[in-house]
Amino acid sequence: MALEIVERPIVSAFYRVPDFAKGRVRDLRVRWAYEEVGVPYETHLLDAMQPRGQDYVGWQPFDQVPALRDDEVEMFESGAILLHIAEKHGALLPRGEQGRCQAISWLFAALNSVEPALTQMVTFALFLSDKPWSAEAVDAVTPFARQRLKRLADALGEREWLAGEFSIADIAMVTVLHTDMAGLVEEQPALSAYRQRAFARPAYRRALEAQLADFSETVSLDDMNA
Amino acid sequence: MALEIVERPIVSAFYRVPDFAKGRVRDLRVRWAYEEVGVPYETHLLDAMQPRGQDYVGWQPFDQVPALRDDEVEMFESGAILLHIAEKHGALLPRGEQGRCQAISWLFAALNSVEPALTQMVTFALFLSDKPWSAEAVDAVTPFARQRLKRLADALGEREWLAGEFSIADIAMVTVLHTDMAGLVEEQPALSAYRQRAFARPAYRRALEAQLADFSETVSLDDMNA
Repeated sequence: MALEIVERPIVSAFYRVPDFAKGRVRDLRVRWAYEEVGVPYETHLLDAMQPRGQDYVGWQPFDQVPALRDDEVEMFESGAILLHIAEKHGALLPRGEQGRCQAISWLFAALNSVEPALTQMVTFALFLSDKPWSAEAVDAVTPFARQRLKRLADALGEREWLAGEFSIADIAMVTVLHTDMAGLVEEQPALSAYRQRAFARPAYRRALEAQLADFSETVSLDDMNA
Repeated sequence: MALEIVERPIVSAFYRVPDFAKGRVRDLRVRWAYEEVGVPYETHLLDAMQPRGQDYVGWQPFDQVPALRDDEVEMFESGAILLHIAEKHGALLPRGEQGRCQAISWLFAALNSVEPALTQMVTFALFLSDKPWSAEAVDAVTPFARQRLKRLADALGEREWLAGEFSIADIAMVTVLHTDMAGLVEEQPALSAYRQRAFARPAYRRALEAQLADFSETVSLDDMNA
């Protein structure tokens, strides 16, 4: 009898990014989920400093990472991939309908109600830092980001994870919090502790090490803006 | 035999918003989905100009609309609610696994890869219009939004809907496109036509009329900034 060939899922990621992005590229979310469920995956490595070309855009329409190809489907967007992994492997989501819906609510909240508030700050602090008004623009959008994090901290309260047990919502939220470069997370002790708890998980450590190990070349932000 | 009492789902929405937001508040997405599947719903109406208080924050942690309560669950985030409605009613998502995953990828793309690019422009054009550098800030972030819409138009191509048949991805994407106040959608004829097609659906018209009918008071942007 022939051995069954099990194809590993393939996750797109980068082999070259500016230093500030290391450990923060979004394929980390997908790697983390696979580490949590114990499914080995392979990577399809790309250069963050070059357009990826038409073939890749057919897979990921916005030319970003991550995208996923497994034995069943081809898809994109880290949030959608997290949900797919959770459903396919029957893990990382509470089993009851109310818990499941809360986790999915928090998954979307991470990506639509929290991440944009933080990304906006990064846009002005990092990518438009040459504008004379960039510091003022960062100041102008900071209160909004701070308020979102305050509300998140209030909602989390004393709980360990957003939907009771650890779920894909926490993978999304913690990696979103990690894009904060202004110390806003540290202003909320509940969020600092939450992030710390998540980062202590062995699956996170393995995912982080795997992403870092795939960066075979170093570039600076100047190369990126060039 | 007693009649069965069927509880209608309850969607939170506003009865008072500034003019520019009319027809654009996110409960429209949920109303649209219910109209598509033919499920009557009720609204829980709130004032956009006042904080909603602790009770509501227990339901919607960011004090936004929409939130949903149905016979099974309580949840929030328009994207999560769209997914819940599609799954509960077996509609608005392709049946095959690949089509379903593509639709969910596009649902997340609407909310995480397209909406933030457009919202960022609105932040500076509308809410920070009193800053001397606001026009320059809008100009600085416009190319990014334009590129995202170009990629969306390329990906849509000649297709009628994002995932083949009409799905929750289109409800999310079309309402996201409707937040564009700079005419960027009109620069992409494929996207203009796509939005037109979606807006021609009877379910959209009914949802829009229902949202507009719920605005019982008029306020100006000045009231909002006050």
